[in-house]
Amino acid sequence: MDDPGYQSGLVDLLGLLSYGELQGFARLAADAAMADNLVDQAAMSAIAVNELRQFERLRDRLVEIGADPESAMTPFVRSIDEFHTSTAPSDWLEGLVKLYVGDGIAEDFYVEMADFVDDETAGLIRSVFKDRGQADFVVTTVREAIAEEPRVAGRLALWGRRLVGEALSQAQRVAGERDSLTELLVSGEGGLDLAGVGELFNRLTSRHAARMEALGLTP
Amino acid sequence: MDDPGYQSGLVDLLGLLSYGELQGFARLAADAAMADNLVDQAAMSAIAVNELRQFERLRDRLVEIGADPESAMTPFVRSIDEFHTSTAPSDWLEGLVKLYVGDGIAEDFYVEMADFVDDETAGLIRSVFKDRGQADFVVTTVREAIAEEPRVAGRLALWGRRLVGEALSQAQRVAGERDSLTELLVSGEGGLDLAGVGELFNRLTSRHAARMEALGLTP
Repeated sequence: MDDPGYQSGLVDLLGLLSYGELQGFARLAADAAMADNLVDQAAMSAIAVNELRQFERLRDRLVEIGADPESAMTPFVRSIDEFHTSTAPSDWLEGLVKLYVGDGIAEDFYVEMADFVDDETAGLIRSVFKDRGQADFVVTTVREAIAEEPRVAGRLALWGRRLVGEALSQAQRVAGERDSLTELLVSGEGGLDLAGVGELFNRLTSRHAARMEALGLTP
Repeated sequence: MDDPGYQSGLVDLLGLLSYGELQGFARLAADAAMADNLVDQAAMSAIAVNELRQFERLRDRLVEIGADPESAMTPFVRSIDEFHTSTAPSDWLEGLVKLYVGDGIAEDFYVEMADFVDDETAGLIRSVFKDRGQADFVVTTVREAIAEEPRVAGRLALWGRRLVGEALSQAQRVAGERDSLTELLVSGEGGLDLAGVGELFNRLTSRHAARMEALGLTP
């Protein structure tokens, strides 16, 4: 924590995660209004509320380590907002796939990042992004929709690929703009070498494919 | 509770309140994204979360009295959605005034309705709609904005009047369509006569004027 390089990478990471959750809350809450029925709307709203609670825990950690949450989040506003603008769901099913596939890949990445931070922050990140129990609800609804009208599977598979493409494109921008964040991943004794980065990428890709398959979609 | 007329008015009232909170959650969460800074965005998001918690309590009461929440809410979807569509804030200040003035008058009305229902439901309604401690945040921000640029006061005063006009127009539609709801207000031994309805209307109007003045706006 005394290493200024580490401190600045950690602030960046928590800023990115915090703003991701804060904005995730707003988007999910709005997407919930597209639900076919009020029970589903309430279910997605409850998931949104969970994201705000997680935001609050991450923000509190920023304050704890002496950082200003607003300044920590600001560098990531543009990338995260552009991600959401370019992946605004056009209907309820697209919203569900975005929740499951888009949040899924982001959360996998965040949990991987926990290996590179102090134990207390790592514990917080793992607890914030542990399985939120929302999987069953989304998987059931999407599979039912495909069973009812098989041709939606093609459209949703394309949508899933687009979500990942947009996420990667914003992730690349963030990595290019925030050296301290990439330093966190590659420096220090536990830091990744090129092969390690490749393995990380493979893990993220194969978990993404598993989620697509769980929904009945071709990855 | 054994009186079918009472039961049906109560289900209508709880359905109206539930859907109002569920949709209020979605709108506030979306409006929060218009905040000037991330601290204010988080503050309005937290108020939105509170609305979803209140929705859940009202919905649970519907289940408790043997009603289906979805059927209970459905009759009010159109009026509440139209209210929100016709009063979508165009900026952060309009969002704040809508939260304070629009929710304020709705909540006053709901608390008045508590006088006409069984004690358990009345207790729930009063506890759901008691002061949510959000007043300070809104009042301070709006007053500061007016101090900085006095001419926004005129625009926001018009906006406040429009909010009430749209709310009344939807309330009239609901009253016209849902006899059981108006019955709740006027039948039984505690029911209101014409003078009583007038007094209720006066109370709502004067509390509305007090809120406008608290914000520094001409009612």
